[in-house]
Amino acid sequence: MTDNKKPDHSRRKERSRRAILEATRALVAEEGYDGISIEAIASRAGVGKQTIYRRWPSKDAVVFAAILALGENRDGDDIALPDTGDLRADLRLVLRATVEEFTDPAFDRLMRAVNTAVSDNETLAARYREEFARPLDEAKRARLLSAREAGELSPDADLDLMLETLYAPLFQRWLHRSGPLTAEYADALVDTALRAFGP
Amino acid sequence: MTDNKKPDHSRRKERSRRAILEATRALVAEEGYDGISIEAIASRAGVGKQTIYRRWPSKDAVVFAAILALGENRDGDDIALPDTGDLRADLRLVLRATVEEFTDPAFDRLMRAVNTAVSDNETLAARYREEFARPLDEAKRARLLSAREAGELSPDADLDLMLETLYAPLFQRWLHRSGPLTAEYADALVDTALRAFGP
Repeated sequence: MTDNKKPDHSRRKERSRRAILEATRALVAEEGYDGISIEAIASRAGVGKQTIYRRWPSKDAVVFAAILALGENRDGDDIALPDTGDLRADLRLVLRATVEEFTDPAFDRLMRAVNTAVSDNETLAARYREEFARPLDEAKRARLLSAREAGELSPDADLDLMLETLYAPLFQRWLHRSGPLTAEYADALVDTALRAFGP
Repeated sequence: MTDNKKPDHSRRKERSRRAILEATRALVAEEGYDGISIEAIASRAGVGKQTIYRRWPSKDAVVFAAILALGENRDGDDIALPDTGDLRADLRLVLRATVEEFTDPAFDRLMRAVNTAVSDNETLAARYREEFARPLDEAKRARLLSAREAGELSPDADLDLMLETLYAPLFQRWLHRSGPLTAEYADALVDTALRAFGP
């Protein structure tokens, strides 16, 4: 309803915004951050360069917006972790999927672009945490909370620290390319976290 | 002896190399990576721009060389971990020192520059691992090995995974500015790793 009442130019604006952000993600995934330009994005999205510059001051800004937009239409069900009542099995499934995601070349290029942006700029880091990472972290935390209540974790387990213990080694290994990212590695991370935070 | 036999121009070259790398580190620490230029480095080091370009093709390359050079004159004693026979106490000391290092603004800027370089470039990542990170990792690993032999760790403790469990959360928190870096946090990381890998 609300959408139908929107004046045409506002719907057109939203369409062009989405086209720009999709083109940006596709190009970063194909070419990597250094290989793309505002011109290439405009051409891929079928808009003029000025349409991009009216909204975003730089390539950094549009790439970052393109990443954040991935989080826009997530709802709770999309990002909830499985809860079969067996924490080890559920975490292995999730960590193995995360490993696979990080070894996908398109995802790899996108995430390296995000990381550089976030590392260099405190404002972007805060937006990334709030708009992108936090909902995911809360979904993970909810699964750990249910496990703690079910007695699968120690009653005083620090769930934020447990999340870091699970995910940070994988993240660092990926960022520094310092070791293989495999299903066995995912399982070893789960086992380590359960030894540290189990009952 | 060998040094005395070096022809003058070779000693001069080495002196100018060191001056350039020191000037680079000082400038990155003061201004951050984005705030510096080859011109500023040349001026600070008292050399011409061409002297820099003859050796390094880009700002990236000279900044990276400046970081690697920090590892050049390290010897085993400099980087060995304390070994008092009490692993928990020794690791707390070391992790607390690491936290302090990461909260120092000059170190912070240098390391963010390194990380961006390493994240974006596989060749630099490999050089960083081999020339800079590996000797430090081996020193840490030696301390864990001695603890495992003394029965302070489980006989089948995976020491590389234990190092990642100790350091990766701190690294990720620092890179993404996602939480406070405090002595209490350092202690919590040590306790987590010892619960996971203890006997």
